[in-house]
Amino acid sequence: MNLDVFMSPNEMSAGDTQGRVVAVIDVLRASTCIAVALSNGARSVIPAEDTDDVITRSKSFERSQVLLAGERRMLPIPGFDLGNSPLEFTQKAVNGCTVLISTTNGTRALLGIQGARDIVIASYVNLSAVSAMLRTAARSDTDIAIVCAGTEGHFSLEDAACAGRYVSSVTTLASTVTMNDGAQACALIDRMYGDNIEKIFKDSSHGKALAEAGFGDDLVAAAAVDSHPVVPIYQERQITRLGPDRER
Amino acid sequence: MNLDVFMSPNEMSAGDTQGRVVAVIDVLRASTCIAVALSNGARSVIPAEDTDDVITRSKSFERSQVLLAGERRMLPIPGFDLGNSPLEFTQKAVNGCTVLISTTNGTRALLGIQGARDIVIASYVNLSAVSAMLRTAARSDTDIAIVCAGTEGHFSLEDAACAGRYVSSVTTLASTVTMNDGAQACALIDRMYGDNIEKIFKDSSHGKALAEAGFGDDLVAAAAVDSHPVVPIYQERQITRLGPDRER
Repeated sequence: MNLDVFMSPNEMSAGDTQGRVVAVIDVLRASTCIAVALSNGARSVIPAEDTDDVITRSKSFERSQVLLAGERRMLPIPGFDLGNSPLEFTQKAVNGCTVLISTTNGTRALLGIQGARDIVIASYVNLSAVSAMLRTAARSDTDIAIVCAGTEGHFSLEDAACAGRYVSSVTTLASTVTMNDGAQACALIDRMYGDNIEKIFKDSSHGKALAEAGFGDDLVAAAAVDSHPVVPIYQERQITRLGPDRER
Repeated sequence: MNLDVFMSPNEMSAGDTQGRVVAVIDVLRASTCIAVALSNGARSVIPAEDTDDVITRSKSFERSQVLLAGERRMLPIPGFDLGNSPLEFTQKAVNGCTVLISTTNGTRALLGIQGARDIVIASYVNLSAVSAMLRTAARSDTDIAIVCAGTEGHFSLEDAACAGRYVSSVTTLASTVTMNDGAQACALIDRMYGDNIEKIFKDSSHGKALAEAGFGDDLVAAAAVDSHPVVPIYQERQITRLGPDRER
């Protein structure tokens, strides 16, 4: 089977995700927030392109059932319920609610995926859960694509390193895996950092910017491997949790 | 100063190369061929987008003064003088001639660069020569961008690894260098492979395809660090050699 990593949505061509299981990674911070929200009982997460899109979509919900979330230049948006910090998506805050989240890079990545069999949201906090799903796909010879959201079309170190962790997980299977150059490079980057995920964030441009803006605790949360073991599935423009209690 | 690597031309935004010294890398095989041709006495190399473009441009030259070069799916183009194999660009073949070369990825990368101070063609065969130029730029606090040509908009391992070698060369300087995530990742990839450049080509998709198509000797030639110590400068749609004998 084929295992390809795309360093940013710009790198994808039509057909690259056709029939595949696709994992989308935006470690800092959308993917992490989505996993945390679903793990903490959110009914669903709806990714929106911008603030206006969040507000428009919120009108089709009862106000008490919906949370408006997102950031503008890393900071919470005035009037919104939540920012884009995983620490805000507590059980108390999100349980039973639909979360509308404005996330430029993540949404662009999701919208660029065409014809996928399944689309899953991946990060470090739900690493083993999503890895298990990818390994199941690999065992049944289903091709896999991992799409790094990147930052405004640019390569981002933390997404690539996280993608590399997933690549390593899939390639430890006995079956023959054909990797594209992106998958190989990401696996190397992951191997160089090993388990020192906070170091990745310290080196990455976006990690540095978050630390400087006072979001250092978010970096610790985003580096907490398997702290939120959910499989978030994107389908019909919303993300819901795949799991024994939701599979009916 | 800033040192940024762009994994493919798709990743660049307007302004990313403004005022910078820009190195373009298409190791397999355009950058390598260009360095070899200029090192072996070609008067200039003119990159063209496709076969038709080569033929059109050739009409403004005397036939004996111009060589038509390029590939289509790795193979030489019928009626052309040369393919895209560095081994063909011998002194006997190219001395005194202008070489018109059809190279999709390399040309796209060059055309995507806007407002650069200087554009230089980089590869392993002219590593130290081009590194010296980049280090001079870094010492005078001029920002540097390294653009990987990639393969049809996709990340390519050999271009990234080669970019990483240049990054390492620049960052060993005492001055403070601010790297983007791409530069850091490429430096890691280069470090993982060390001096085993042929291994990079063995792992890379394009390297594998070339080996399978019978171009294994080209890979050996492309891995020969500093075998052709020239600085190819792209200016007004042609590439000429920078050097003591040409600087007048």
